[in-house]
Amino acid sequence: MRKKEIVIKFPNGNEKNYMQGISLEEIAQSISSSLKKKSVAGKVNGALYDLKRCIYEDAEIELYDIHSLAGVEIMRHTSAHVLAQAIKRLYGEVRLGIGPVIENGFYYDVDLESTMTVDDLVKIEREMAKIISENLEIKRKELPRDEVRKIFKEDPLKLELLEDIPQGDTVTVYRQGEFVDLCRGPHLPATRFIKAFKLTHVSGAYWRGDSNNKVLQRIYGVAFASKEELEEHFHFVEEAQKRNHRKLGNELELFMFSEEAPGMPFYLANGQIIRNELEAFLRKLQHQYDYQEVRTPSMMNKRLWERSGHWDHYKENMYFTEVDNQEFALKPMNCPGHMLIFKDRRRSYRDLPIRIAEFGQVHRHEFSGALNGLLRVRTFCQDDAHIFVRPDQIEDEISLALQLIDRVYQTFGFEYEIELSTRPEDYMGSEELWNQAEASLEKVLKSLGYPYKVNEGDGAFYGPKIDIHIKDAIKRSHQCATVQLDFQFPEKFDLTYIDEQNQKVRPVVIHRAVFGSIDRFLGILIEHFGGAFPDWLSPIQVTVIPVSNTIHKEYVEEITRRFKQEEIRVALDLREEKLGYKMREAQMKKVPYILVIGDHELENQSVNLRQYGQETSMEVQLDEFISNIKTSIGNKSLNNSELEFEFE
Amino acid sequence: MRKKEIVIKFPNGNEKNYMQGISLEEIAQSISSSLKKKSVAGKVNGALYDLKRCIYEDAEIELYDIHSLAGVEIMRHTSAHVLAQAIKRLYGEVRLGIGPVIENGFYYDVDLESTMTVDDLVKIEREMAKIISENLEIKRKELPRDEVRKIFKEDPLKLELLEDIPQGDTVTVYRQGEFVDLCRGPHLPATRFIKAFKLTHVSGAYWRGDSNNKVLQRIYGVAFASKEELEEHFHFVEEAQKRNHRKLGNELELFMFSEEAPGMPFYLANGQIIRNELEAFLRKLQHQYDYQEVRTPSMMNKRLWERSGHWDHYKENMYFTEVDNQEFALKPMNCPGHMLIFKDRRRSYRDLPIRIAEFGQVHRHEFSGALNGLLRVRTFCQDDAHIFVRPDQIEDEISLALQLIDRVYQTFGFEYEIELSTRPEDYMGSEELWNQAEASLEKVLKSLGYPYKVNEGDGAFYGPKIDIHIKDAIKRSHQCATVQLDFQFPEKFDLTYIDEQNQKVRPVVIHRAVFGSIDRFLGILIEHFGGAFPDWLSPIQVTVIPVSNTIHKEYVEEITRRFKQEEIRVALDLREEKLGYKMREAQMKKVPYILVIGDHELENQSVNLRQYGQETSMEVQLDEFISNIKTSIGNKSLNNSELEFEFE
Repeated sequence: MRKKEIVIKFPNGNEKNYMQGISLEEIAQSISSSLKKKSVAGKVNGALYDLKRCIYEDAEIELYDIHSLAGVEIMRHTSAHVLAQAIKRLYGEVRLGIGPVIENGFYYDVDLESTMTVDDLVKIEREMAKIISENLEIKRKELPRDEVRKIFKEDPLKLELLEDIPQGDTVTVYRQGEFVDLCRGPHLPATRFIKAFKLTHVSGAYWRGDSNNKVLQRIYGVAFASKEELEEHFHFVEEAQKRNHRKLGNELELFMFSEEAPGMPFYLANGQIIRNELEAFLRKLQHQYDYQEVRTPSMMNKRLWERSGHWDHYKENMYFTEVDNQEFALKPMNCPGHMLIFKDRRRSYRDLPIRIAEFGQVHRHEFSGALNGLLRVRTFCQDDAHIFVRPDQIEDEISLALQLIDRVYQTFGFEYEIELSTRPEDYMGSEELWNQAEASLEKVLKSLGYPYKVNEGDGAFYGPKIDIHIKDAIKRSHQCATVQLDFQFPEKFDLTYIDEQNQKVRPVVIHRAVFGSIDRFLGILIEHFGGAFPDWLSPIQVTVIPVSNTIHKEYVEEITRRFKQEEIRVALDLREEKLGYKMREAQMKKVPYILVIGDHELENQSVNLRQYGQETSMEVQLDEFISNIKTSIGNKSLNNSELEFEFE
Repeated sequence: MRKKEIVIKFPNGNEKNYMQGISLEEIAQSISSSLKKKSVAGKVNGALYDLKRCIYEDAEIELYDIHSLAGVEIMRHTSAHVLAQAIKRLYGEVRLGIGPVIENGFYYDVDLESTMTVDDLVKIEREMAKIISENLEIKRKELPRDEVRKIFKEDPLKLELLEDIPQGDTVTVYRQGEFVDLCRGPHLPATRFIKAFKLTHVSGAYWRGDSNNKVLQRIYGVAFASKEELEEHFHFVEEAQKRNHRKLGNELELFMFSEEAPGMPFYLANGQIIRNELEAFLRKLQHQYDYQEVRTPSMMNKRLWERSGHWDHYKENMYFTEVDNQEFALKPMNCPGHMLIFKDRRRSYRDLPIRIAEFGQVHRHEFSGALNGLLRVRTFCQDDAHIFVRPDQIEDEISLALQLIDRVYQTFGFEYEIELSTRPEDYMGSEELWNQAEASLEKVLKSLGYPYKVNEGDGAFYGPKIDIHIKDAIKRSHQCATVQLDFQFPEKFDLTYIDEQNQKVRPVVIHRAVFGSIDRFLGILIEHFGGAFPDWLSPIQVTVIPVSNTIHKEYVEEITRRFKQEEIRVALDLREEKLGYKMREAQMKKVPYILVIGDHELENQSVNLRQYGQETSMEVQLDEFISNIKTSIGNKSLNNSELEFEFE
């Protein structure tokens, strides 16, 4: 075949001619040596390519360095190969399974007689470092199946994988030094491109996930483009583990789960206190914003869900039951119930906007494997509202909804990002209405001075929406609040109001949630605050501990009564335990204020105060303390250790 | 057959011999003429007897006068015959169906060409009065079926009824004057014993309730032992109609129902405000009484309901669904969930009592015909608590529960009666524990000085209980609160705590509800207050109306902001309607305080106050009004018209 020229198109739109068979590495070199030096792989016409792989056709290309998302993922893949190579070197008789990339790292499944220990991991890591420093070149080769079979004739698991590659597909192997693996690739050009890695743990895994197969040893590792990122990752993992809401939920007795109701939380006293505070907080705000709170049934007739479209589009996530020999469904959303409430009376243009809110318990099926504490459940309480508006009221109402959301999130100290999603291809309603609605949303966001990102075509088919992503204390992002315009429900439920010309016209519906799911929001809050809630949310706000259970009993009981009168949540610890033990336990429970009472405090009508997270304690007058904590609770102050106590 | 003597035993235990064949009337006469004169029927060996019917065996007897429950029911039955007789006299060609006794009265189903009107009822009433004044003697006769067939040969419906009387049963007819009816009886001795009656309305009813049959006309009437009682009844009906919670629920926009969820209330904004107030009120009290509030899932695995016994004993009232291919049931009660919470941790004798409370939404199936607004629903929120105690804590905890109930009921002004139900025949647990528990309950009731009634053998099989029956404003009785001891759940769920000897022992469970069902309690409250709620429960506490929507706009808006700041629920009426219209509407909505604002009030920073139910208005300083209404709300005062305004 005669070589001819091909056209290479770069991400910036530039085009350049090269000879057929050129590699990405050569293209990079043709631009600059520095580009060649930092590139580790690339994309050719949408497919990931090794840097040295030849290109035979006109192509759009992209080059990746090690810091790009694709670059780091390829590095993790190569790390898996290096792991396997190290094991082969160290243990000889080992049969390899698969070695894919996972979040932050990779693993390799191996069939090995001896059980891996922490010491083994250290040894393997050392060998991996050696392989990396050997800087072995990594070579891709397309081979006929027979040859591949020969290479892996001692590797039955690899042979099994080979048989699964569809006939006609190209089979490739990757070689680095003495090590060869059956692999689709791509990989780094050489082992030294692996910048920072660590093996983390070993667990058992059935070969190919089938419990009829043998259990292999799965060795996990993480890899990053720099040592700093690796360290950051371990810091994050440690931080996340400390903050894990399931762990804290158990330790702080916030909630529990039972196998009698998988995915359905049981709130214990402490968790329920926080839930109630969250509800009361939003209820009060909603009252200020002239919402009407309602409560609709948990189940409704099948025909309602057919009408709403849930029957066609959401059935797999719904639970069903039978009432009077008719099929009913447990509500996965509150919308249809609110539509029935709107429809129940004749509405005039003067009545709008009508803001209907509910703390509605909904049920949505999730696969048991997807359940995750409070973050992914099968039943949760949605702080749902539907605002029925005239078209001319859209802007004001969106603006009010965003202001309400802002007030709530500021209270928790959440930063957040706003995304505006616009008309998708399969939109419903008139283009004119969409244009108007999108323009309204943008106008509102601009007039409030909120920065936002536009997701073109990512709106719901029933209308454009604004999603809000909060950032928690360790910078994880959670989508919670949403404000959505809906042109479809008013049609489906034939909603009307009487306008000034005495004509029936359709309202627009705004769906709005602030917490989203109170359950999930609570899970996020637990991790955000690491269980050390601000005063207003703390299940126990004050623990009172007497130095002597006998001498100071009367005074501590009097103090405790005072707190109860002031509606401060107080615990009095009169157990027959040592003072230090009681204090440590209260700190473990992350109680914001521990008050120790001895002779001196009794005499002075004061308390000895230790604030959560502080090393030292101080004496405060009881009245002053009560006044300060009430202010903090009333203001929903964020940082309870910032409370200032001034002495007279 | 030779007549012999029989022994008649009287209710007081006395016995007397009479000749066989003697009647109740003769026996009454043998005691006193006055007894004979006032007796209308009686009971012979447990069966109701006409006064003149002969007695052939030894018998325990009882005599009824017209004021007894049995006497008045027999009078209602005779009234049905008099109604049928009057119709026959007036309309001739009529075919009679059945004429039974119902609550407060009776009806007769008739097959008649012309449709009955109110005028007809008046005419029939007049004829009935005539028949009563004719004082026709009413005679019972046992007859062979053939003779009965002859009597009713023109009366096909009666013939049908005759065929349904089982072969071998005695067939009786009753005759008064020219009228004869197929009837089991008994009846009054003569028509003049009917003291007070009135026909109320006509409706259609399928013959024998079968929709394949002809529709008959059902004529309803009421009858009482005195004119006063009849009047009282109509007064009560009128009062109950005015207070009907379904009617008020619609007028005051408290709740609605939908055919998409029969028996499952939708709470509208105004109703939800009251629900929230009720919950918040009890939540705060429960917190003072050291309850822990929890929240458990709405559905749980079938095996849990098998364990709790609901599967065997309550299945027909439960709704089912499927999760992960396993059968789940929606909770009809919260108990099993609370047992799981108790079991979740190791409990020590020092931890008890543990008081677990929940505002738990439960689902219980009811036949659609049994549904009645909020009073009988298919889903409701139960204010359920389970108190886990050591046996030595039973008395204190029962006492605390009763005190809590008393505080709640006093707040609504409810009088109540207490019933103690003791060991039934099929009791569970040791007799000793029962005796101890019953003695404890009685001791508590006595020490609290509560009068109570004992229902021997009426306890639940799992323990004795105290039921509390409240009396509403029109003296109807409702069972709401309950306090029940339970020895069974701790067994079924294998609940234990560690005692002082480090042994595992069973706690006792106390089930407790105060409202019972918040939904039903709300229904009762609506009727009790006739929709004119005390200030703290009123959905709208204050309506502000300007004399001029332009001149006084600023001041009324300022006032309205003030109220909102003070968390007073305020409505500002700025509609383009006349002042009188707005005031009437606010009164219809039973708003406790209407404030009218004109020039004078603007100048004086005052308000013109019209309290609900009062004819006159008065001028009050705004600050004074706010202070007074806040006091009333804070104290949960009952009678909002008793608020005293003093002038400076």
